[in-house]
Amino acid sequence: MKDNPKVAIVAGCDSKFSKNTEKSIFDIAMEPCVSLFKNKKNGKINKDNLDAVIFSSCTEEQYTSSILSEMIGIKPKISQRLDNLCNSGSNAIINAYSYIVSGLCESVLVVGAEKTTTSGKRLAWDISRGNFSSPIYWASLFARMHMRKFGTTEEQMAHVVVKNRNNGRKNKNALTYNEKKVGLEDVLSSKKISDPIKKLDCSQVCEGASAILLTSSRRIKEFTDNPVWIKGIGHQTSCASFGNIVDEILTSSPAKQASNLAFKMAGIGPSNIDVAEIHDAFSILEIMAYEDLGFVKRGFGGKYAEKNLITINPRGGLIGMGHPLGTTGISQAVEIFSQLSNIDKKRKQRNYQKTGIIHNLAAAGTSASVIILGVD
Amino acid sequence: MKDNPKVAIVAGCDSKFSKNTEKSIFDIAMEPCVSLFKNKKNGKINKDNLDAVIFSSCTEEQYTSSILSEMIGIKPKISQRLDNLCNSGSNAIINAYSYIVSGLCESVLVVGAEKTTTSGKRLAWDISRGNFSSPIYWASLFARMHMRKFGTTEEQMAHVVVKNRNNGRKNKNALTYNEKKVGLEDVLSSKKISDPIKKLDCSQVCEGASAILLTSSRRIKEFTDNPVWIKGIGHQTSCASFGNIVDEILTSSPAKQASNLAFKMAGIGPSNIDVAEIHDAFSILEIMAYEDLGFVKRGFGGKYAEKNLITINPRGGLIGMGHPLGTTGISQAVEIFSQLSNIDKKRKQRNYQKTGIIHNLAAAGTSASVIILGVD
Repeated sequence: MKDNPKVAIVAGCDSKFSKNTEKSIFDIAMEPCVSLFKNKKNGKINKDNLDAVIFSSCTEEQYTSSILSEMIGIKPKISQRLDNLCNSGSNAIINAYSYIVSGLCESVLVVGAEKTTTSGKRLAWDISRGNFSSPIYWASLFARMHMRKFGTTEEQMAHVVVKNRNNGRKNKNALTYNEKKVGLEDVLSSKKISDPIKKLDCSQVCEGASAILLTSSRRIKEFTDNPVWIKGIGHQTSCASFGNIVDEILTSSPAKQASNLAFKMAGIGPSNIDVAEIHDAFSILEIMAYEDLGFVKRGFGGKYAEKNLITINPRGGLIGMGHPLGTTGISQAVEIFSQLSNIDKKRKQRNYQKTGIIHNLAAAGTSASVIILGVD
Repeated sequence: MKDNPKVAIVAGCDSKFSKNTEKSIFDIAMEPCVSLFKNKKNGKINKDNLDAVIFSSCTEEQYTSSILSEMIGIKPKISQRLDNLCNSGSNAIINAYSYIVSGLCESVLVVGAEKTTTSGKRLAWDISRGNFSSPIYWASLFARMHMRKFGTTEEQMAHVVVKNRNNGRKNKNALTYNEKKVGLEDVLSSKKISDPIKKLDCSQVCEGASAILLTSSRRIKEFTDNPVWIKGIGHQTSCASFGNIVDEILTSSPAKQASNLAFKMAGIGPSNIDVAEIHDAFSILEIMAYEDLGFVKRGFGGKYAEKNLITINPRGGLIGMGHPLGTTGISQAVEIFSQLSNIDKKRKQRNYQKTGIIHNLAAAGTSASVIILGVD
């Protein structure tokens, strides 16, 4: 029997994230694909010999992956669309990983794209939410729970926003690029939407696309001298409805379970992480993620937000970058790839970065994905 | 390094296929899942320890796989929806296979479900079709090409219909169950819709669901004594638009390429196949499939349809069973599983059946999947 190959990300690109343009989902999806195959930094990357195109999106369009393949001008073996709301992108990456390890594919293009009007924003199926179908309602409940149980403050949440908005304004692809610098007071005085969540605590659903190319260790030399390897993967789905997640979200949450699985597979611990992309649809979620990922013990996420110990959400996170649902997990991977590889040094906040982590959630954290990436 | 596990189907169920009921996509999807876990023939099957739920559907609903998991009462690691029009189901099975071989999962539930009103019926995205967006137009072009080039006759196509309708009327889950026996004359005199395609040459889009459970060779003894192994997989996407497929559809079609890959992986040839499930959305497609799968040389599919050499489409195919888009590939697998295993002997047309094949297409055959199954 043959040895299982390792799997690496060898290239990644984002489109410019924006809002409510007239572009079709396919026009949006093509942007990072064109960049990826044209970018001179991606010297050895070309579109020949791609075995699969996996498209991540909540779009209502049909046959999207095959249409995209035709537009790119490739004839992959496998072509499929995949979705799971906000963590669709992470699912697609894990799917690509499994295709390569299983031997069915050697090289896979993973593309995420979303329109601002994505139907993934509607959560009408979850009757346990009653009339409170907007995500901000569960975010405000989580925030209140965290404040009551652990003494977390609105100011600590504001620290997350300040960091992510100010990372976003330096990222030319971010929705908040070039916006004015945001301070704690700006966040705390922004309009209260559902107490204690204020306008600046929220990410904005937007449109945008990201693409990454993955290949096997068998073929790596044909693509790059700077691979970023997938070291660990963790996934957990607890339920779909808010009513069923609320009891475990601050204890053995899906994100905690996914994190444990990913660290076990990678054979490392939270202290080995140099850079993280965290799902901060609302600032409280980043604080909860610090705990779920084991950066601090449960309850200490608020205090951790006041420090700046490792590079967290350097592209701006969802709050600074914008949140095109099916794209987000892939954009997170583009950023960790950029941070760890030596191809692209922009936004690299620390020189010595060997290991990164991606944390992604869907639907009130009812499902979660964690991916650990590293350079040798 | 560890050896790659083999992957087997250990259980499979269909719902009753029907048309335009008031059921939700989730109600439909639950039917085969309930059957699968309740069926006493599936002695060792239970819903504990399922690592993934993969949902195949063209539905516009969101977070479907997680909702389905909650309804079943399981907490899988991986949960995602996947689609690629009419061959969504085969994609989902191949996805499950790769998750198991990669070591990320041991056991995966694959469920397909569709409403009659599925938006997968709309092909407006393919501007190369002009005003001829209905699938029957490309089917009539393919039929005319085959007739002109190889002398195939309308009567030969009618042979496919007679076989599949009469298999369907004996299958209690089929859309055509208990309908009156169909003869060649009935087909030939049925209403001409787009010359030479007549009403009875067409499958009907309908609603229905199917579910299969897959597991690894490491865990097989916990589930069954009658596994049906996945022996070969082939996939090919050539394009999305009709305008780009027409030149190769009767030569090196995606189905032909997928078939070659699957046979190579399985290490066997077409003469080893005892039972086949073929995508017959229109009768001409089954004739083309005989050629693509290598049962006969190119051009001899029409003559092959007049014979009845091996068991083909015993559940009725798409023409007899009905065609709920994302469900079809999984229902095909349910049937081959039933035919090869010793659990369920209904519809078994020959006693000595060791190897089966599944052939599935999407969108005018622009993409194709072939899966070879076998018992040891």
